[in-house]
Amino acid sequence: MTAFERQWEDYTELVELKLKKYLADGRIHKTLSEAMAYSLNAGGKRLRPALLMAACELSDGDLGDALPLAAAVEMIHTYSLIHDDLPAMDDDDYRRGKPSNHKVFGEGIAILAGDGLLNYAFQVMLEFLPYARDRDDYAKAVLELSNRAGVWGMIAGQTADLLFAAGSGEPTVAELNYIHNHKTADLISGALLAGALVAGADQRLLEALRAYGSFFGLAFQIKDDLLDLQGDASLLGKSVGKDQRENKLTFPALYGEEKAAAMLRECTENARAALEPFGEGAEFLCEMAARMAVRDH
Amino acid sequence: MTAFERQWEDYTELVELKLKKYLADGRIHKTLSEAMAYSLNAGGKRLRPALLMAACELSDGDLGDALPLAAAVEMIHTYSLIHDDLPAMDDDDYRRGKPSNHKVFGEGIAILAGDGLLNYAFQVMLEFLPYARDRDDYAKAVLELSNRAGVWGMIAGQTADLLFAAGSGEPTVAELNYIHNHKTADLISGALLAGALVAGADQRLLEALRAYGSFFGLAFQIKDDLLDLQGDASLLGKSVGKDQRENKLTFPALYGEEKAAAMLRECTENARAALEPFGEGAEFLCEMAARMAVRDH
Repeated sequence: MTAFERQWEDYTELVELKLKKYLADGRIHKTLSEAMAYSLNAGGKRLRPALLMAACELSDGDLGDALPLAAAVEMIHTYSLIHDDLPAMDDDDYRRGKPSNHKVFGEGIAILAGDGLLNYAFQVMLEFLPYARDRDDYAKAVLELSNRAGVWGMIAGQTADLLFAAGSGEPTVAELNYIHNHKTADLISGALLAGALVAGADQRLLEALRAYGSFFGLAFQIKDDLLDLQGDASLLGKSVGKDQRENKLTFPALYGEEKAAAMLRECTENARAALEPFGEGAEFLCEMAARMAVRDH
Repeated sequence: MTAFERQWEDYTELVELKLKKYLADGRIHKTLSEAMAYSLNAGGKRLRPALLMAACELSDGDLGDALPLAAAVEMIHTYSLIHDDLPAMDDDDYRRGKPSNHKVFGEGIAILAGDGLLNYAFQVMLEFLPYARDRDDYAKAVLELSNRAGVWGMIAGQTADLLFAAGSGEPTVAELNYIHNHKTADLISGALLAGALVAGADQRLLEALRAYGSFFGLAFQIKDDLLDLQGDASLLGKSVGKDQRENKLTFPALYGEEKAAAMLRECTENARAALEPFGEGAEFLCEMAARMAVRDH
């Protein structure tokens, strides 16, 4: 196991312990808690929590302050997948090789499990506020995450994505950028910036992480688009070729596969370059960008 | 116009101005903003914002601090209605005499508009935090609201309601109380307590408002159940007799209409009694309870 792999595993263990503790709260309705746990434990990479914790450590912060935020960003990511898989949205029966939430619990409970995860993300973040080392920094981190996840961030991207697939909107570069920046890059940037803000990072580091997040988020989505075209359904745990069937606006659709692959390499390189001035401490994030560009699922 | 009516109109104007300002934010995706505004402006009574602001004034608080919370509680209430009306939930085509959100914008956008309102509620509450007169009190109010709205509050009640209608659960008093306390009373109590907490109310007043909120919330739901049986569809703006058709667990179903009406009167009286020690300042809330018990929609 490399140093990178060990660090990622450490982050994963920390956030999963935290999520387990939060989900074990006996006040949550039992069926709701099961539905939330089903999707939270369905084999996610815990990418956003790892980015958040790495940004916090790069900013010399305390992981204790970052953990509620890391758990919350994974809840927010998971709720967005549950709602995205619904028949009225992307209509996916499988997610990471398992039946989607609504295939197991029914659509009504899946909607509520998504609502529940979004609301609970804010509950756990707010509950920790009085215990944060610096409450102002912590509150800034929560606000950044909520703005990036919300109606001018991730939800705006989902809206544009849905409307385009339904036949409205032109297949332009501007439209593609809007969809992907918001649908994918915003929550990734939100995780990075929240990790840095909670640690009281200076403007120079915040700017660098903002640049890294934009490039990395874009690269992540281009890779997603390419995997839908070229990937192995059994490794992906979901069907492939779906974007084209559903008239999604993607990088390969607009630029062709070759150009999209070149853009993926360029974005990945730009993400690494943004953090170069920060030396060894930024190695985890640089390697994460490189790994995500060559992932098979 | 009575003093009560003038006060309610003042609260309504204040919160509607605030909501309008929030919705006009140009960063929100246009279609999303339209879908959110459609339901926010569909003729709601603004009951929860009025309760929040009245509780704040009863606690000698500043309405400036209460307003973002009041707008947020209306957004949370509205998102819950949008999701509740979806085919996979209560499947209602009309709400307050207008087509439901998903009948106008489609199910996908309705899901996103609901998600958006929930997320935006937290965005606007968190954005105001640095400007609150007392940040600790304000943060307590936000946490109370988020807990009451969430997975052991309103969303838990919706889950139990849905599961019961789908055939699981016994028609017991305990089950009925769980559903109604959480589905309806929790957000009403959350609004009242948030208004008091942001004003730094003392324990005695908080306890009284907690009691008032529980009784009032229960009374409000019993009245809702009775209106579904006895009400005028044209005044209600939705179909009647739906609870029975959909196998909902309601007060009249469990106790009969006469007993339910007696419980409505008793809960209303108990709500008023809880605030009696606070004299004139509590008159608005006492009259609100009385009015809601005799409303026709």
